[in-house]
Amino acid sequence: MGIGPGRANEMTPRAEQALKEAEVVVGYRTYLDLVRRLLPGKEVVGSGMREEVARAREAVARAAAGAQVAVVSGGDPGVYGMAAPVLEAAAAAEVPVTVVPGVTAATAAAALLGAPLGHDFAVVSLSDLLTPWSVIEKRLRAVVEADFVLVLYNPASSRRQDKWRRALVVIRERRPPETPVGVVWDAGREGERKVVCNLATVAEFPVDMRALVIIGNSQTYVANGAMITPRGYKW
Amino acid sequence: MGIGPGRANEMTPRAEQALKEAEVVVGYRTYLDLVRRLLPGKEVVGSGMREEVARAREAVARAAAGAQVAVVSGGDPGVYGMAAPVLEAAAAAEVPVTVVPGVTAATAAAALLGAPLGHDFAVVSLSDLLTPWSVIEKRLRAVVEADFVLVLYNPASSRRQDKWRRALVVIRERRPPETPVGVVWDAGREGERKVVCNLATVAEFPVDMRALVIIGNSQTYVANGAMITPRGYKW
Repeated sequence: MGIGPGRANEMTPRAEQALKEAEVVVGYRTYLDLVRRLLPGKEVVGSGMREEVARAREAVARAAAGAQVAVVSGGDPGVYGMAAPVLEAAAAAEVPVTVVPGVTAATAAAALLGAPLGHDFAVVSLSDLLTPWSVIEKRLRAVVEADFVLVLYNPASSRRQDKWRRALVVIRERRPPETPVGVVWDAGREGERKVVCNLATVAEFPVDMRALVIIGNSQTYVANGAMITPRGYKW
Repeated sequence: MGIGPGRANEMTPRAEQALKEAEVVVGYRTYLDLVRRLLPGKEVVGSGMREEVARAREAVARAAAGAQVAVVSGGDPGVYGMAAPVLEAAAAAEVPVTVVPGVTAATAAAALLGAPLGHDFAVVSLSDLLTPWSVIEKRLRAVVEADFVLVLYNPASSRRQDKWRRALVVIRERRPPETPVGVVWDAGREGERKVVCNLATVAEFPVDMRALVIIGNSQTYVANGAMITPRGYKW
């Protein structure tokens, strides 16, 4: 289930109900912290980053033993979240799974920036922990050549800045420096911040795992501080 | 503001609050019908499809005259919704706008199908009313060549079936016939239906404006009836 960006008023009643009905709640600790108000009286199984597969197996084992289990994801569980690993683990164990959607980080960040996703867009994670960088770079080239708006998840970490710099090189080969770029840190959470800049200036900002980056297409412009990608009215 | 897929329990409390505070509610009639329970006592301005620009101008004119106005979109307002036309109209009139996100149709449909969006994906509308078909076809080719999962909005209408057939030809040039495909009709609404099939068989199903189509990438598979795109664990 997806808890949305983080604030209580952006989690759907359906997701809240699913959490209330759970006996066991499994999740990455950062997301469990965001729904702490709903956890009293439940067994809570928290774990760290990069432990997605172990977390999914634990959740399925608890469900197979008869418990009602909720697995918590930030945003929407289907977008780089726990839905896929849970369904993979559940298929072997024949445990029934319902995926409860949430407001995903891309649209939460887009709403803060204006309407950058008003036309076709692509979503790419720059994390090469589980995907070869050659595949990621090929996707970036395809996206800029076909003039998609581009949403970057996991653009960088404090240790991993080289891929973000490399991605900018690839994107700048095909898009002019004045292309609008929006960066949102902690969208929908405590400490939320945003900046609207462009491809020439975005490298000045500290991009990390808490950031989501949206790069405009050839039609995207900025008006009154808002990024707008029109739905083709100007073709 | 985004009302989510349609059911009351998938609209966020934040969006519900925005609607409650509005004096004037503007929207496409189909979406207004989905939130009818929240409209008593308000002035409601409904209009038809393809009237997005007129609707946005009407909303901004009402706001400029002093009213608190809510403009309703299905799903999330930023994804092929009213956020872009409203921000465009508001920029000229200097009317302040807040975009309230919602659960978007792509993730609502994905949740019903399993976890097809577990890795990088692209979102393309097949409607060529406002975008030249050459641009759409170029984007489809880029997406299949770079092995993105593909989400198709507005795949066809009762009159417009040729573009859907043409898109399938383009996609089949690069993806094998056994590639998993999911189709969801009326995701999250009355009459919701879904099918998980593949690129060889999808043409057998009646795809129209109420349908959303998700086409897997090279890693997508089906287990226990669910479409799963793993997050690179098997690269």
